[in-house]
Amino acid sequence: MVKFGIIGAGGISAAFAKAAAVTEGVQIAAVAAQDMKRAQRFAAEHRIPHAFGNYAQILSDRAVDAVYIGNTTNFHYNCIKMCLAAGKHVLCEKAMVETEAKAQECFDLARGKGLFLMEAMWSRFLPKTQKVRDWVLGGRIGNVTGVQATIGGCFDKDPGNRFYSPALGGGAMYDLGVYPIELIPYFTGLDITAYSAKVIRAATGVDESISLTLDLEGTPAHAMISFNAALPGDCWIYGENGCIKIPHFHWGSEAVLYGPDMKETEHFSQPEENGMRFEIAEAVHCITEQYSTSDIATPEMTITACRIYDSVLGKKKD
Amino acid sequence: MVKFGIIGAGGISAAFAKAAAVTEGVQIAAVAAQDMKRAQRFAAEHRIPHAFGNYAQILSDRAVDAVYIGNTTNFHYNCIKMCLAAGKHVLCEKAMVETEAKAQECFDLARGKGLFLMEAMWSRFLPKTQKVRDWVLGGRIGNVTGVQATIGGCFDKDPGNRFYSPALGGGAMYDLGVYPIELIPYFTGLDITAYSAKVIRAATGVDESISLTLDLEGTPAHAMISFNAALPGDCWIYGENGCIKIPHFHWGSEAVLYGPDMKETEHFSQPEENGMRFEIAEAVHCITEQYSTSDIATPEMTITACRIYDSVLGKKKD
Repeated sequence: MVKFGIIGAGGISAAFAKAAAVTEGVQIAAVAAQDMKRAQRFAAEHRIPHAFGNYAQILSDRAVDAVYIGNTTNFHYNCIKMCLAAGKHVLCEKAMVETEAKAQECFDLARGKGLFLMEAMWSRFLPKTQKVRDWVLGGRIGNVTGVQATIGGCFDKDPGNRFYSPALGGGAMYDLGVYPIELIPYFTGLDITAYSAKVIRAATGVDESISLTLDLEGTPAHAMISFNAALPGDCWIYGENGCIKIPHFHWGSEAVLYGPDMKETEHFSQPEENGMRFEIAEAVHCITEQYSTSDIATPEMTITACRIYDSVLGKKKD
Repeated sequence: MVKFGIIGAGGISAAFAKAAAVTEGVQIAAVAAQDMKRAQRFAAEHRIPHAFGNYAQILSDRAVDAVYIGNTTNFHYNCIKMCLAAGKHVLCEKAMVETEAKAQECFDLARGKGLFLMEAMWSRFLPKTQKVRDWVLGGRIGNVTGVQATIGGCFDKDPGNRFYSPALGGGAMYDLGVYPIELIPYFTGLDITAYSAKVIRAATGVDESISLTLDLEGTPAHAMISFNAALPGDCWIYGENGCIKIPHFHWGSEAVLYGPDMKETEHFSQPEENGMRFEIAEAVHCITEQYSTSDIATPEMTITACRIYDSVLGKKKD
């Protein structure tokens, strides 16, 4: 049984707590927020035994084996280092950190201490994602010739929210861009070997929309990423003998395989209410087996994504 | 009544002859092919009074006011100059020519002689294209934030056919790339201000697939263009308040308008058997009115496309 503490008492932490409640081998032992009342409310709602009004206290709770970090991106780097220093395994929300140097440092630290660290790229563990990967790697569409994806919608332009605030690690790249960057290579089994981007910034200075071009070992991919456009959110994988449509590619439960004539060949559908439970199961499995990294949501996945953030958004001062 | 001669007796010329037969104000007076038998067969099939076994003869036929050039891209430049020199108006198949310099020279020549010259970008004249343009320019999806399109399929890799032969002006850019380059600016009312491309070449040396990124006055667009992939062929226009899907964007008769929630708001459908008749009607109108260019398929459209071919494929020796 792996006992998790939760850092951050927002919406994503609530989703985590709900998913953990229906996942075997995991318990939520404690929750910490910067505001004690928020932590207590969250604990009561999710029947969590301990609530803390600051992040440090949860780390001295000996009942806690691992920490799920669910606060905003700007806090992740310090929280990861604190957790690892306290001997806790870590599952950290995406985008894990902002720069390649920080990502590399965190994974080195975890490996050095024999602790588990994974970015919470839950979409890699969804059944439909595995199905798409099986189709592609099984040659069902022949050689992959290209990929196109969109992700985004019209977000509230409040400069104080996590989307538009630079101080909270806002911007479309960290919030949404992480998905095409970390999923497209996984769908296709191809590594990102080069990339370029056109970034359009909002008044607050965060990246509001991005046209991202990836080179996947010679195969081109393109993603439209946006806080200010009503995008369908599909990913299309094109091949010499057919193509695959993944509706709502980062969360949906469907995938459609087409033959070369665009005739539907296979339709995968497996509705899933708790998509996060698959990533939690992976974290529990890895921690139980004493692995310090996952073979599915790998350090390379996160480090490559951070390299792209660095390069496309301009190096951040650490 | 505008009397057309046809140069080239292939499939596209047959489509032109059929479309002309159902268009008012136009007659087909003659056809010329490099092979007299082919010309005669074509003339018999389409009830055309005169057939010629070489291109020069059709130009001395005084019954011919205008010439439709329907042979392969490699022949266009010389044919256009011959036709203009003979005082004939010209409607030339796409891609019109391979380089910006040739395109500029042809339009200058036509203007100097008071003759009409237009690239046969028939898709700009389709009712569904006009409907899409009305939606976008009428603000139905708000500010345009991005465009994605695909065009292509698995073509016969025979090095002797017009697709794969460098000598015949083959390659995916001239054959298919011309559509996103010339249609996306028209759909959106935005000019191409910058572009970049990743080109993958076939064994014969022609461009087999292209990942093309356009900058439309700051708005990004991306097109996947291919001779070796089963692509859906749709164009998506994304905006702040909704999006538009144009199935088979370069020939289809449908267009779908979605609201910000991806809910279908309007569905335009107008099945059309002779899509080319609209461009023919435009040519007839312009010639009758003594315009030397069209306001819809403009010289700028063709010159911009040729600039992109030049730059992306490498300058051609003239």
